[in-house]
Amino acid sequence: MGKTNQGRFFEDYKVGDVLIHAVPRTVGQGERALYHALYPARHALYSSDAFAQTCGLPAAPLDDLIAFHTVFGKTVPDVSLNAVANLGYAEGRWLAPVWPGDTLTAQSEVIGVKQNSNGKTGVVWVRTTGRNQNGDAVLEYVRWVMVRKGNLDAPAPDTSVPDLTKVVSAENLVVPQGLTFANYDFALAGEAHRLRDYDIGEQINHVDGVTVEEAEHMMATRLWQNTAKVHFDTSARPDGTRLIYGGHVISMARALSFNGLANAQMVVGLNAGAHANPCLAGDTIRAWSEVLDKADTSAPGVGAIRLRLVATKGEADFSLRGDDGKYRPEVLLDLDYWALMPV
Amino acid sequence: MGKTNQGRFFEDYKVGDVLIHAVPRTVGQGERALYHALYPARHALYSSDAFAQTCGLPAAPLDDLIAFHTVFGKTVPDVSLNAVANLGYAEGRWLAPVWPGDTLTAQSEVIGVKQNSNGKTGVVWVRTTGRNQNGDAVLEYVRWVMVRKGNLDAPAPDTSVPDLTKVVSAENLVVPQGLTFANYDFALAGEAHRLRDYDIGEQINHVDGVTVEEAEHMMATRLWQNTAKVHFDTSARPDGTRLIYGGHVISMARALSFNGLANAQMVVGLNAGAHANPCLAGDTIRAWSEVLDKADTSAPGVGAIRLRLVATKGEADFSLRGDDGKYRPEVLLDLDYWALMPV
Amino acid sequence: MGKTNQGRFFEDYKVGDVLIHAVPRTVGQGERALYHALYPARHALYSSDAFAQTCGLPAAPLDDLIAFHTVFGKTVPDVSLNAVANLGYAEGRWLAPVWPGDTLTAQSEVIGVKQNSNGKTGVVWVRTTGRNQNGDAVLEYVRWVMVRKGNLDAPAPDTSVPDLTKVVSAENLVVPQGLTFANYDFALAGEAHRLRDYDIGEQINHVDGVTVEEAEHMMATRLWQNTAKVHFDTSARPDGTRLIYGGHVISMARALSFNGLANAQMVVGLNAGAHANPCLAGDTIRAWSEVLDKADTSAPGVGAIRLRLVATKGEADFSLRGDDGKYRPEVLLDLDYWALMPV
Repeated sequence: MGKTNQGRFFEDYKVGDVLIHAVPRTVGQGERALYHALYPARHALYSSDAFAQTCGLPAAPLDDLIAFHTVFGKTVPDVSLNAVANLGYAEGRWLAPVWPGDTLTAQSEVIGVKQNSNGKTGVVWVRTTGRNQNGDAVLEYVRWVMVRKGNLDAPAPDTSVPDLTKVVSAENLVVPQGLTFANYDFALAGEAHRLRDYDIGEQINHVDGVTVEEAEHMMATRLWQNTAKVHFDTSARPDGTRLIYGGHVISMARALSFNGLANAQMVVGLNAGAHANPCLAGDTIRAWSEVLDKADTSAPGVGAIRLRLVATKGEADFSLRGDDGKYRPEVLLDLDYWALMPV
Repeated sequence: MGKTNQGRFFEDYKVGDVLIHAVPRTVGQGERALYHALYPARHALYSSDAFAQTCGLPAAPLDDLIAFHTVFGKTVPDVSLNAVANLGYAEGRWLAPVWPGDTLTAQSEVIGVKQNSNGKTGVVWVRTTGRNQNGDAVLEYVRWVMVRKGNLDAPAPDTSVPDLTKVVSAENLVVPQGLTFANYDFALAGEAHRLRDYDIGEQINHVDGVTVEEAEHMMATRLWQNTAKVHFDTSARPDGTRLIYGGHVISMARALSFNGLANAQMVVGLNAGAHANPCLAGDTIRAWSEVLDKADTSAPGVGAIRLRLVATKGEADFSLRGDDGKYRPEVLLDLDYWALMPV
Repeated sequence: MGKTNQGRFFEDYKVGDVLIHAVPRTVGQGERALYHALYPARHALYSSDAFAQTCGLPAAPLDDLIAFHTVFGKTVPDVSLNAVANLGYAEGRWLAPVWPGDTLTAQSEVIGVKQNSNGKTGVVWVRTTGRNQNGDAVLEYVRWVMVRKGNLDAPAPDTSVPDLTKVVSAENLVVPQGLTFANYDFALAGEAHRLRDYDIGEQINHVDGVTVEEAEHMMATRLWQNTAKVHFDTSARPDGTRLIYGGHVISMARALSFNGLANAQMVVGLNAGAHANPCLAGDTIRAWSEVLDKADTSAPGVGAIRLRLVATKGEADFSLRGDDGKYRPEVLLDLDYWALMPV
C-alpha cells in the first residue's frame, strides 16, 4: 500500500507547516443546482441572478456554504483522515464571493499542537485559506481536530495552543464589493423582517423538518470531494452505520432557517461551531436560531446579524444543554455565525 | 414563532387577491442535468441543442415540466401549505420556452372561493402566472386546492366558483417562436410515428416501470423549492410515510411515455389533472396514454396531440375507474394535456 | 403495444447493419457536477479548469467515462434491451475530449453474430462510435452481448466472429491535441508518483470503499439515458432486486483508484472488460489495480500506463479467480485499460 495516502498522524504535524491541499476544483451551475436539490435552500440572493443584480452584484454567487464545503473537503486527506473528532471552528471569514466558473484551491497552516495526556492522540489546530484561480482569498477559518498518533513512541511536541478570538468582530467582516440592500425587495425575498425587527436574545423555531437519507448525504459529501471513510463505507465503523458529514447538517439547518430568517442572506463570519452529536440517516433534522448580536456595516442598507444556529434531531425546543452542562443528546449542531441582512 | 410562515388558511383568501410568490429562481444546465438524472427523460428536443436547432430553436429549452415545477414550487408557501388536497388543474398553457439562465418568478390571483359544508375547510381557486426576467409570461394555469380554516368562527365568504374551460382549444395553444418540424429527424428522435399515425381513442402501454426512492423524490421536490412538509418529514403524517409530490409522478409518467410517444415533443397545454391516489417510496410507477384529440397548428410541420396520461403503481391495464366510478386504487395520476408532434 | 420499442432479438441483427441510435445528448457542467456527486472522482484534470489549462487544454474536459456512459446509454435500446449478458469489450479508444456543451450521438455496426448451440440465444458483436456535433468521433469500442431469440424458429445465421485485438497497441492511442505534462503540478494532483515510479506487475490496493444505494445507481443510469428495465424496476427480476448498471461499478472503481493512481489522469484505451458478478444496492465496492504495461507517447511529458482495474464487493486481496478458474464471487469487475500519466 506504499502508493496510497494513509493520512497524517499527530506526530506528523509541526507548528508552521504549510499543507498544500490537492485537487483544485472548478465549481459552477451544476454544483448550484445540486445544492438546491440536496438542501431546501431558498435565500433569494443565491437563488436568482436577477435578485442578486438588484443587490449590486453581477450575478448570484454560489452559496457561501458551497465555498466552505469545497475548501473543507480539500483539507480532509491532509487534516482529518485519521481524526478522532472535529473539535471546533473559529475566526472564519468569507472574503470574496465565489462565482460560477471559479476554481478553488486550499492550503492550511499548522498553528497549534497539543498531545493528550493519554499519549495516544493529540489536538492539531490549522488555519485554512481557500483561494480562487486569481489567487484571491475567498475564505479562511481555523479548525481543530483530535488526531491519532501513528507511532505511540513518538515524543510529545512542545504544546502550542493558538490564541483565538471568541467572536469575529463586526468591523472585520468583509462585505462583498458592490453589495447594497438599498433596493431590497422583501416580497421576493420571502419575509418582511429586517435587522431592526430582530431583538438580541430572540429565539426562532424554524418549524420545518427533513428526514435524511443515505444517498443524499453521500452525494453531498462526494460533491465536496470529502473522502473520509466513515461517511461512505458501512464497514468503517463497528456498528455498520455511516456517519453523516457535519457540514451536511450545517447546510440543512441553514436552509431550514430560511423560515424566519429569509433575509439573513449572506454568511460572512463563522465564530464557533460544535458538532454536538452524530447524525445518521433516518434522523429528522430541525433547527432553531437565537439572535446573539447585531451590527452595522459600511455598505448601503446592509447590516450584520450574529446568530446561534442549532440543529436537532428531535423537537426544537430551544434547549441546548442538560443539567450536566453537556449538549442534550438530540442536539446535532451548535453554530455561531454572522450573516448580512437589510437594516 | 412570530417570524415563521405558518401558511394561509381558507379565510385568508379573497377573490381578486394577487399573491406575489417569493424567491425568484435562475434555472440552467444544472437543473437540466438533474432532471435527466431524476427521470428517464429522452425527448430529443430537450436532450440536444443540435436537435433543437434543426427544429428552428436557438438551443434546447429546459423541459416544460421544469418550468411547471419551478413555478408551482413558488406557489406552495402561499397556496398549499395548509392544503388538505390538490383538487385539480385547468386552462394551463406554456407561453414561451424557458432557456438556461432564465430567472422565473410567479404570482397568483385568487379567482374563486367556496367554503365546504363542514365549516372546517374550503376550496380556493388560483390562476398562477410564471414570468421570466424580462417579464414575459412563460406559463399560466389554474389550480384549486382544499384548504383548512384557521379560525373556524370566520364567516363563510360568498361562494364564487370560476367558469373554467374543460379543454384548452387548439387554436389557443402557443407554439414557440421559430419552431418547425419540417426537417425533423425521426431516427434521432427515436420513433417513426407521427401525428397521422395516431388514432383518436388509441391507447399505448408505455411498458417500462420505475421503482421510486425517498432520496430521489425529495431531491426533485427540493430542486423546485417546494416546501410542503409532507414530502420531507416522517413526523408530518401519522403513519410516518413521506408523501411523494404529485409533480414527481407527472414527470416520471411523462418521461416513461417516451416509449410510444417519443415525438410528442413539447407540452403546451394542461387541460385537467387529478392526483388520484398517493404515491410512496417503493411504488413502481408505470404509465399508459390515450389519444384524445388531434389538431393542426400554424407552424411548419407542427401538429398538436391531446393525450390522457395515466400513471399507475401496478400493472397498466388501461382501466381507470372501478364499478363505483372512483379511480382504481392503483391509479396515481390522470392528466389531460396537449403536446406538439410532427404531423 | 405496436408503438413501443420491444428491442431487437438475435435474429434481427445482420453483419454489416448500421444502427443509428436515437436521442442525441448535450452534456455539460450539470453532468460534471452530478458525476462528482455520484462518484468520489478527484482526478485533477477533470476537476479543475485551471489544472487542465496548465496541461495545455483550453478547459477541463468532461470525464472520459461521461463520454463512455453517454454513448453506451444510447446503444441500449438497440443493442441490449433483450440482452441476457454483457459479455465483453475490446478495441476501445477515446479519440477526442468531450467539452461542456458538446452534443453526442452514437451509431453501431454489427460486426459479428453467432447463434448458441441451445438455439435460444446468440452472441452479437457491435462496433460503436460516438460523435460530437461536428461529426468528429470522440469514442469507439467493440462490445458483445448475448441476446435472446424472439422467434426460436428463425434459422441460425452464418457464424461470423470478428478478429479482435487483445490489447490496443500504445502507438494507436490518441493523445488529446495540445496535451502536455511538462508543467504538471504533482502537489495539486494529489500524489508524487509518476510513470517511472510504477513497475509492471505492481499491485495497488485503493483502500477506500463505498456502500452503494438504489437512488444513486438509478440516478447515474438515468443520467446516461440507459433504459434497461433491470436497473429500475423491482418487478423485472424474479428476486425483486435491481441490478446495478455495470458502468456504475466502472466509474466507482475508477474514482476509488485515485488513491494510489492520482496521476493516471485520462483514460484513452479500453482493452477488455468483464462484469464478473452482479452488483446490488448495499454492496460495498472496493478496488485494486495491477500495472500491466507502460509506454511512451509523442506528447511532452505524457506516458501511457496499462492497468487492470478490479472492483470487488468484499476485501480487495488481489485475488481474481478461484481454483476452478472462474472469477471469485466477490469480484464485480475486471477491466483492462490505458491511461495517460506524467512520465
